[in-house]
Amino acid sequence: MSDTGITVKKAEDFSEWYTQVVLKSGMADYAPVKGCMIFREHSYAIWEKIQQIFDGKIKKTGHRNVYFPLFIPESFLKKEAEHFEGFVPEVAWVTVGGNTALEERLAVRPTSETIIHATLGKWIRSWRDLPIKLNQWCNIVRWETKATRLFLRTREFLWQEGHTAHATKEEADKEVMQILNDYKDLMENYLATPVLAGMKTESEKFAGALYTTAVEAMMPDGKALQMGTSHNLGQHFSKVFDIKFLDEQEKECYVWQTSWGITTRMIGALVMIHSDDKGLVLPPKIAPVQVVIVPIPYKGADPELVLAKAKEIFQRLLEKGVEVVLDDRSEYTPGWKFNQWELKGVPIRIEIGPRDLKQKQATLARRDTFEKIAVKEEQTVPKVMKLLEEIQNNIFKKAKKSLEESITSVKTYDEFKNVLKEKGGFIRASWCLDSKCEAKIKEETGATIRIVPFEKEKPFSKCINCGGEAKEVVYFARAY
Amino acid sequence: MSDTGITVKKAEDFSEWYTQVVLKSGMADYAPVKGCMIFREHSYAIWEKIQQIFDGKIKKTGHRNVYFPLFIPESFLKKEAEHFEGFVPEVAWVTVGGNTALEERLAVRPTSETIIHATLGKWIRSWRDLPIKLNQWCNIVRWETKATRLFLRTREFLWQEGHTAHATKEEADKEVMQILNDYKDLMENYLATPVLAGMKTESEKFAGALYTTAVEAMMPDGKALQMGTSHNLGQHFSKVFDIKFLDEQEKECYVWQTSWGITTRMIGALVMIHSDDKGLVLPPKIAPVQVVIVPIPYKGADPELVLAKAKEIFQRLLEKGVEVVLDDRSEYTPGWKFNQWELKGVPIRIEIGPRDLKQKQATLARRDTFEKIAVKEEQTVPKVMKLLEEIQNNIFKKAKKSLEESITSVKTYDEFKNVLKEKGGFIRASWCLDSKCEAKIKEETGATIRIVPFEKEKPFSKCINCGGEAKEVVYFARAY
Repeated sequence: MSDTGITVKKAEDFSEWYTQVVLKSGMADYAPVKGCMIFREHSYAIWEKIQQIFDGKIKKTGHRNVYFPLFIPESFLKKEAEHFEGFVPEVAWVTVGGNTALEERLAVRPTSETIIHATLGKWIRSWRDLPIKLNQWCNIVRWETKATRLFLRTREFLWQEGHTAHATKEEADKEVMQILNDYKDLMENYLATPVLAGMKTESEKFAGALYTTAVEAMMPDGKALQMGTSHNLGQHFSKVFDIKFLDEQEKECYVWQTSWGITTRMIGALVMIHSDDKGLVLPPKIAPVQVVIVPIPYKGADPELVLAKAKEIFQRLLEKGVEVVLDDRSEYTPGWKFNQWELKGVPIRIEIGPRDLKQKQATLARRDTFEKIAVKEEQTVPKVMKLLEEIQNNIFKKAKKSLEESITSVKTYDEFKNVLKEKGGFIRASWCLDSKCEAKIKEETGATIRIVPFEKEKPFSKCINCGGEAKEVVYFARAY
Repeated sequence: MSDTGITVKKAEDFSEWYTQVVLKSGMADYAPVKGCMIFREHSYAIWEKIQQIFDGKIKKTGHRNVYFPLFIPESFLKKEAEHFEGFVPEVAWVTVGGNTALEERLAVRPTSETIIHATLGKWIRSWRDLPIKLNQWCNIVRWETKATRLFLRTREFLWQEGHTAHATKEEADKEVMQILNDYKDLMENYLATPVLAGMKTESEKFAGALYTTAVEAMMPDGKALQMGTSHNLGQHFSKVFDIKFLDEQEKECYVWQTSWGITTRMIGALVMIHSDDKGLVLPPKIAPVQVVIVPIPYKGADPELVLAKAKEIFQRLLEKGVEVVLDDRSEYTPGWKFNQWELKGVPIRIEIGPRDLKQKQATLARRDTFEKIAVKEEQTVPKVMKLLEEIQNNIFKKAKKSLEESITSVKTYDEFKNVLKEKGGFIRASWCLDSKCEAKIKEETGATIRIVPFEKEKPFSKCINCGGEAKEVVYFARAY
């Protein structure tokens, strides 16, 4: 193995393994400014794919992109009390502009509800102006004090934030669910990352929301990761920012609002879930490079012939829209190249050597299973297309199975604590709805309620904490 | 005219006209935080087109997108003295994170050379690692104290910044020119905005660069606008940030670097150049909506028939990849819709009324000339495709003529001052190369040297300022 390979095993030191995969695959690097990270080419290209996929979805449903300012006056943040309480502990403040101390300090946006809502009122007059469905792709700053984890916990990250205004609660409810479904589709059918979807409890909802829905994934170390949230803000913000409209009967009403977001931490999740001891494993649909062709020049054989064949296959794949790289660098050996491209998670490697040439075939190597497949020359392109699909499905199926196996139903608090200690994962348990029980469990075990399922499940024990009558089945976990 | 129309004439009050066009067309709005602006749907969609076009160009030439942190420690900015001097007067500083005063204050990036270069050294070991060609699309903050001008002068704007590292000066030179040519192509062939290309003088170059090249456009009020810059940074930064590589002879060398950028101010330029007293005029290639179809339901005629025909044409244009909107809202009159879409600069409007239906035709209205053209039904789609091209060309030709007519050659300083006062535009004059003359002209007239042409032109008088021997012909102007 080259000196750039991963030196620990995923099963043995998960945290160190993750950091090595991210750094050595060229996904990311620590920034020379504390708590921040650099999104290198390999992860930024994945982010671009995610943007393209999700942007296409929301534009089809009438959303439009905009860009609001980075800076939010402190007084705006303060307008919605719950929102301010929730965000102020992790705000970075600009206090000096040029050489002058500012009269009012400016928050570097931790989220943009307040700056957007402060303007929306100006644009909305009548029911004809509704719905307004805006989205922005931007950077976000939250002043984390815990140790930096690349993609998962950094002081700056990238995201999209949607902000909509509607005439009725029903429309806002519908928007919240439509977006949550778009998120689920993105994660499962593109990132190959299965999720649980549901409601957040009162104590876990977004600061200032009426209610929050979320999708949550399970990491191989047994901790949950929140992948995206979609909130109904009710009229909480429209009342403090005075966002009103005249309805068809000329009656003045406050709008109903939603907001929703997904972030670059999804990239961290997909690394953790799919990758292995050789490095990254990327789902073909979001892999920046889907296929790499490595010509193998043997001694005694004509390297030009091998290269010509490699170029021909390269061209044919390109024409099919496959993201393909021909690695014909002469300064590296084929073995070194194999390791590098495995590290980078390229789904399919095509090897072409003199023997392949002689037998009019190519050798395909799958990144997910390491299987090697010899195919007849004329079958190369169709086989690659089929294999990309198969790999996408295989990766998802494997992850889906892991998610399902991670769920444990428990009936007693002892069981609960034991599962947390021995296995982790989602713990399915019955709960009395009292937030005091929720808080006590969090304090005693570190586990929180990640999801309250949309379709109520029948309680199968007393409340896992207090032993009182249970009202709902919920999913607990420790989380990132 | 509806109350949302433009109430001043471009020829009479240019500045107020510009602001009204930008606000009323839904391009932008002032933000509720001083000096900042909101990029609304209509301008952000143009920005997305610009991103798509330019991103495609640079990816084809091997550039890759990345994202570096927003925050730059003050000590990094200070490393290259000239760079620090140039940027420090307009930096916004973060001094508090969460509830804690920071030990070292952090600049909100005014440009990213220093934070990127502080890391590049870690990634570069040998000639095999070069060239490195990175780009990022991001927000930038410069603490302007002069009055806000939407798109042109705001404390935050959007841009792309390219950063590359090469083994030799020649390669860096080549990169600088390749990018400048990409910029020129984007501006002239997509934004329909003609530019002059050339070098900046020593006093106008980028703070820290070896030299700067630029493209400059001329606004209708006689002031130049810098549209993009491409810098050769030489080894200025690689020496202070210690970015070295081993060449093929194992000799340690400093890399040669470039950086280059274009910003959202280009959107302001294209508004000023092409638009008119009715509102925006957008070049078809970057118009978010290229064609709008307005069905005209006359009394007595069957509105369903008109609508069905409108939908049919809509579908056929959509299939051709045209960005088309069918405005079938019943709560607005056709006249109101015409004004709105003219305000928004949609290149072609298609009207379909009962008379068109009867005569099996459609009526096309050009935004650039207001010409109305009746076309046979089956010719509608090909005519629209042709017209989009014609409008693109016509808009560019008109702007090109204006640019050429804006250039005045002068032989004396009196003439120089007179042209500046009476006409503005680019002033072509001979210069002795002494930066004292350049500074004196700037102080006395406000005009600066915008461009030193790449192909030297023969001086045709003594130095316009000092009367000494002239060495070069340069282009002066007052600028935004």
